[in-house]
Amino acid sequence: MSLWALGIDLGGTSIKAAVVGEDTGLLSSTNVPTAKGSGPGGIVRQLSTIVADLYRSALVTLDPADFAGVGLGAPGAVDPEKGLLSYPPNLPGWSVYPLRDELQQAVRRELLFDVPVSIDNDANAAAYGEAVYGAGRTFRDFLMVTLGTGVGGGIILNRKLYRGPQGTAGEIGFMIIDFEGPGLHAGIRGTIESMIGKTRIVELATRMIESSPTGSLAGRLCGNDYSRLSPRHLEQAAREGDEVALVLWERVGEILGVGLANVTALMDIRKFVIGGGISAVGHFIFDPALATLRQSTLPPMHDGLEIVPALLGNKAGMYGAAALCFG
Amino acid sequence: MSLWALGIDLGGTSIKAAVVGEDTGLLSSTNVPTAKGSGPGGIVRQLSTIVADLYRSALVTLDPADFAGVGLGAPGAVDPEKGLLSYPPNLPGWSVYPLRDELQQAVRRELLFDVPVSIDNDANAAAYGEAVYGAGRTFRDFLMVTLGTGVGGGIILNRKLYRGPQGTAGEIGFMIIDFEGPGLHAGIRGTIESMIGKTRIVELATRMIESSPTGSLAGRLCGNDYSRLSPRHLEQAAREGDEVALVLWERVGEILGVGLANVTALMDIRKFVIGGGISAVGHFIFDPALATLRQSTLPPMHDGLEIVPALLGNKAGMYGAAALCFG
Repeated sequence: MSLWALGIDLGGTSIKAAVVGEDTGLLSSTNVPTAKGSGPGGIVRQLSTIVADLYRSALVTLDPADFAGVGLGAPGAVDPEKGLLSYPPNLPGWSVYPLRDELQQAVRRELLFDVPVSIDNDANAAAYGEAVYGAGRTFRDFLMVTLGTGVGGGIILNRKLYRGPQGTAGEIGFMIIDFEGPGLHAGIRGTIESMIGKTRIVELATRMIESSPTGSLAGRLCGNDYSRLSPRHLEQAAREGDEVALVLWERVGEILGVGLANVTALMDIRKFVIGGGISAVGHFIFDPALATLRQSTLPPMHDGLEIVPALLGNKAGMYGAAALCFG
Repeated sequence: MSLWALGIDLGGTSIKAAVVGEDTGLLSSTNVPTAKGSGPGGIVRQLSTIVADLYRSALVTLDPADFAGVGLGAPGAVDPEKGLLSYPPNLPGWSVYPLRDELQQAVRRELLFDVPVSIDNDANAAAYGEAVYGAGRTFRDFLMVTLGTGVGGGIILNRKLYRGPQGTAGEIGFMIIDFEGPGLHAGIRGTIESMIGKTRIVELATRMIESSPTGSLAGRLCGNDYSRLSPRHLEQAAREGDEVALVLWERVGEILGVGLANVTALMDIRKFVIGGGISAVGHFIFDPALATLRQSTLPPMHDGLEIVPALLGNKAGMYGAAALCFG
């Protein structure tokens, strides 16, 4: 027998859900727009319908006796023990909501039996997904960093999620590396996210392009309309050797590397898995990040330092949410 | 019955050793200059003599059946599982040395029986001492910071030492908070230690006094000979309301607070125990540190933030080393 579960990634834009086999990985998946306007109750109904549909379709090939449950990754502060989701960003109208128990009851109404439901923070779910099925499979301990609109993180220690005493651990985006610097995010000065969150990267690139005597391919790629400039333009420009784009990504990598050095100093973690949309830029970020990480840590800590790209892309959350049911 | 053990704090200047009762605390102690010049072998002989003497004197009141062993805190990188001490600073002539096993054999030659020996890093031992007998007794999870010549740290998670995957965790002194700033320590720019290690505090104070139009009581306390200026002068000046000294300690507290905020963001640790010689300055550092810690973390993480002074002073290492034997 081989266990299987449903893994759900609840986002502000879409709900991604999959049937995941413990040994076989992702078997089928679905992706629907989040009914944001319907509030917690509406979203729970939406989730329970998705669960019931996926469950019934899975029974064509899978044994109900091997069903391990439903795992859910959600944005915002999650208390996995109490099953609470608090103030999810991008989901208006929520405060503190007993998401796990409400979902469990709604699923029982659909399927007429009790299904075990586990919930966790979406960054934690993604880190756990990479740990069990992705780039972190061979690492006992690592930090997963998600570079996207925000900069998020999840910590794996001894193959388990490290959530911290109150469940809010892993916030690498709020690590301060330039405490008197110009960057400000959520009222905090000099954080990693204030410097390399997506909009900050584009702002920095715009300034660099405008002050470059020769301009930049990235500028031409967006028709010199910087309101349209995106990380994709900057990535493509770097691949074609554009000097401004190369310097930009080196700077982003350097800032990331300083943050990772702090993780190594404090927690002795030496493996890093980098995901999120921005991570597609690859070695243009990873190489300077690793160089900075080495320069910014003591030599006895250089053994085993490694930065690798995530493998599961935007499926990591579904994988990890399902894997919560196999733990 | 109540267990007892010997706790040793091996330093570059002195060896402090104590008989510690699990329930009764420190029963007797000794303090001898470290025979630095005699190399690892000589120090092991010195340690085994101290152990044998303390053990024999303890038997006047304590039962040998309740003896739990010898715990040792040592400077530098310690591998507690393998019992190795690597390149201790301030102890010339050591490279990688099997300190635990050598000490165990030397003690067997003195006492004619096998004594369990545990070793750990001195900062970890101090943190564990505060956890079991000191300011951390009521905290499940906390970071101990030692403010002295250097800035060290030890992490307690779930009432146990968190040593990290390779045993080097807790190096809060190497946390970078000003990555392009002027401070440099051990080749790394902008670390906490590069900004508030003891010599850096005195350097900063000297600059502040020299550029102050009215001077500072701290300057007068050292006879305006800044080569003699010490944190004690700056502490006394602050207690008497000296403006320069107050601003200095506020700055030190602010820098500490930024470092602690990074620990809260990454590990979700919200309790901090501050020891080491500089910590005697007390609220002049702690108050701005706590204010900065709150300003530099998200509101959902403000619950339970606390900074408290260590309670065991320079005895924390002996307490913690002994407590390693009760674990």
